[in-house]
Amino acid sequence: MPIITLLTDFGTADGYVAEMMGVLYSHVPGVTIVDLSHEIPPQDVEAARLALARYWRRFPQGTVHLVVVDPGVGSERAAIAVDSGGQFLVGPDNGVLSPALWALDAQVVSLPVPVLAAPTFHGRDVFAPAAATLALGVPVQSLGEPFSEPIRRRTPEARRRNDGAIVGEVLTIDRFGNALTNLVTRTGGDIVVNTSHFTIARTYSDVAPGQPLALIGSSGFVELAVRNGNAAAQMQLQRGTPVVLFKNGG
Amino acid sequence: MPIITLLTDFGTADGYVAEMMGVLYSHVPGVTIVDLSHEIPPQDVEAARLALARYWRRFPQGTVHLVVVDPGVGSERAAIAVDSGGQFLVGPDNGVLSPALWALDAQVVSLPVPVLAAPTFHGRDVFAPAAATLALGVPVQSLGEPFSEPIRRRTPEARRRNDGAIVGEVLTIDRFGNALTNLVTRTGGDIVVNTSHFTIARTYSDVAPGQPLALIGSSGFVELAVRNGNAAAQMQLQRGTPVVLFKNGG
Amino acid sequence: MPIITLLTDFGTADGYVAEMMGVLYSHVPGVTIVDLSHEIPPQDVEAARLALARYWRRFPQGTVHLVVVDPGVGSERAAIAVDSGGQFLVGPDNGVLSPALWALDAQVVSLPVPVLAAPTFHGRDVFAPAAATLALGVPVQSLGEPFSEPIRRRTPEARRRNDGAIVGEVLTIDRFGNALTNLVTRTGGDIVVNTSHFTIARTYSDVAPGQPLALIGSSGFVELAVRNGNAAAQMQLQRGTPVVLFKNGG
Repeated sequence: MPIITLLTDFGTADGYVAEMMGVLYSHVPGVTIVDLSHEIPPQDVEAARLALARYWRRFPQGTVHLVVVDPGVGSERAAIAVDSGGQFLVGPDNGVLSPALWALDAQVVSLPVPVLAAPTFHGRDVFAPAAATLALGVPVQSLGEPFSEPIRRRTPEARRRNDGAIVGEVLTIDRFGNALTNLVTRTGGDIVVNTSHFTIARTYSDVAPGQPLALIGSSGFVELAVRNGNAAAQMQLQRGTPVVLFKNGG
Repeated sequence: MPIITLLTDFGTADGYVAEMMGVLYSHVPGVTIVDLSHEIPPQDVEAARLALARYWRRFPQGTVHLVVVDPGVGSERAAIAVDSGGQFLVGPDNGVLSPALWALDAQVVSLPVPVLAAPTFHGRDVFAPAAATLALGVPVQSLGEPFSEPIRRRTPEARRRNDGAIVGEVLTIDRFGNALTNLVTRTGGDIVVNTSHFTIARTYSDVAPGQPLALIGSSGFVELAVRNGNAAAQMQLQRGTPVVLFKNGG
Repeated sequence: MPIITLLTDFGTADGYVAEMMGVLYSHVPGVTIVDLSHEIPPQDVEAARLALARYWRRFPQGTVHLVVVDPGVGSERAAIAVDSGGQFLVGPDNGVLSPALWALDAQVVSLPVPVLAAPTFHGRDVFAPAAATLALGVPVQSLGEPFSEPIRRRTPEARRRNDGAIVGEVLTIDRFGNALTNLVTRTGGDIVVNTSHFTIARTYSDVAPGQPLALIGSSGFVELAVRNGNAAAQMQLQRGTPVVLFKNGG
C-alpha cells in the first residue's frame, strides 16, 4: 500500500488541503496519506526545504512526497516530479525539492499543466494527480519530459575567517525557540553569538533552567537553545543572525 | 475500507478530537480517518460550511463526512445524518451541512440523542457513533426518523445594480490573506473594492510582487489577492466587505 | 493492523514529527498512525497529561500511545514503556503518562538509550523505535528492565472547607475559553469564582448568548463557560484560579 506525504503552507481551515485529499483518495483507493505539515509559514520555500531535508529519506522506499509551497503558482515556473533514491517527490520548481535533487541519480521530469487546471491551485489540479499516478506505480519518466535544470538550493555554507574561526548563521527558529545553524563540529568548541559566549554542551539539562547553551542538534548542526525557555526571544536570534564557532584544538 | 473525514473547530490540544478518534477506531476496525481540519475558528459555522462546500463531492462514494461546529450543542437543535449523492454527512442542524442538503436527492434523518450523551459533547457521544455506524454500511434511514426541514444556508447572492454593475461581498479570508467573494464572471471584467480598481487577471504572477490584483479563484469565484503578500491586511478587507464587478461587454 | 497515536508539543512545521513518522512507517509497514495533537503548548507536561487522561482508554486494545512532551530530554530522566489494561504507552518518565500508570496492573519498563541517540531528540531515536516495536507485537517486558517507581502525577484534589463548601481550581482552559476544574458533583449546586456566582446548568444554551454559566463537562467535572463566548477572557480565569462549590442539600 503506497504512502503519500503532504507538506504545504495551506493551513487546514480553508479546505484547500481537503480538496487535495479528495483527489488523492479518489484516484488511489487504500492509499495511506500522511499529513506532515500544513503549517509552513505562507510562501516560505526555505522553511519547507529545511523540513523536507529532515524527513524525506526516512520514509519507506516508494513513498511519494507531495510538497506544495508555491508562491509562483500559475507563472512560467515548471511543475516537476522526481525519482531520487527510490523516493518520489512532486512539487514546484522553486528549490523546495532541493534535498532530493542533489542526489546524483535523481531523475526529474516536468509535468504538463492541463488547460483546465486552476492557475492558482496546482496543488489540486497538477501536483495531487501526479502524486496519485506515482503512488499507483507509474514511473516518473511517464509523467512528463526530462527536465535537466531544476532549481537547486543549498543551505548557505559557513566560512573560515583569517583567525581560524568559522562564521555561520542561524538557518531557522523552531517551535521551541531553538536556533538551528549551519555550523558543524565533531570536536566541540566555543560559540559566540551577538555578544554571548558558550561552550558546546551535550543536551539542554547540562545547564540550569533558563540558561542559554549551544549544542549539537539532532541533525548534526550546532543549535542555540535555552533550557526550558525560548532562545530566539531571549537572545534576539532570527534567520540570518551570524554565529561564530571556535573549534577546540584550533 | 470506508473513509471518515473530520472537520471541527476543536483544535487538537485539549484531547476532544482524540476522544472522538477513539470512538471511531473502536467501532470501525480498519477505518481510514482523515483529519481535514480542526482549526475552523471557534463556533464559526459559516467558515465550516464554506470549507465543506469545497471538498465534500471530491471524496470517493461512500465517504462519511463528520462535521462538528456546533455552538448549539445540547440545545433543541437537531442532530442529523444525510445521504446525498452517495456521500454521507453527520453533524448538527445549524446549516453547516448545507452544501450537501441542497441536492434534490438528499435524504436526511434526525439522530436520537442518548440519555447519557454529554450535553456539551455530541461530537463524541452522538455524531461519532452515527458516523461509525454509517461507515459500517448501515443505511442512513436506519439511524433515525426522516427530517424534512433541515436548516439550509446559502452563500449570499450578488445583486445587479441599476447601472449594470454586480455588487457582491467578501465571503471569507484565507490563510494567505486572499479575499474570496461571491462574484462570478465568465468574461472577465473590472473590480472595484473600497476605492481601488482592478482588471481581472489570470494568476498572481500577472502583477509585480506586492501588487494587488483580482482573479478567478480555484472554485470559480472572484478573489482579491496581493502577489506574495496579504490582501486582507493590505487592502483592509474582511468578511462582508462590498466588492463591485463591472463585466466586460456589460 | 496496529494503531500508534502521537501526542507531542512539536508543532509540525519544523519536520520533527515528520522524522518520527518516517521511523514508524519504515519499521511497521501498514501501521495506522493517528496524529492526536502536536499542538500541546511547548514543554507543558500537565496539558499533555490531561489530554491523555481523556483519550487513552477509548482506543482499541493493543493501541500504542506515543507521548513526547519532554523538557528533560537527554538528562537522567528515564524513558519508559507501559502496558496498562491492554493499551501500550511510550514516553518520558516525567508524569505525562500518569493516567495509565495509576492502574494496578500497569507494567512499566525503562527503555535503554542507544549511544547514538541524539540527546535532544529521543522522540525519534528512543520513543518511536520502542513504539514501533510494541506495534509489531513485542511484549513490553522485552523492551527494557522493570521500572518500579515511575513518576505519577495526579490532578490536584479539591478540599472541603469548614463551612462545607468544596474548594477546587481551574485545571486548564480549552480552545473555546472554557475553564475545566477539578470539582465533581452529582447533585448540582452553586459555584462561586472570583466574585461571580452560578447555579450549575445542563448545557450552554440554558443561558442567553454572552452569559456565563457553570455546568458538568463531558468528563464529569465542573466547567465554567460563556455561551457563544470565551469564559477565560470574560471572567479572567486561568490555570489555578480557585473555584468554590456549594453542593445542593449542603
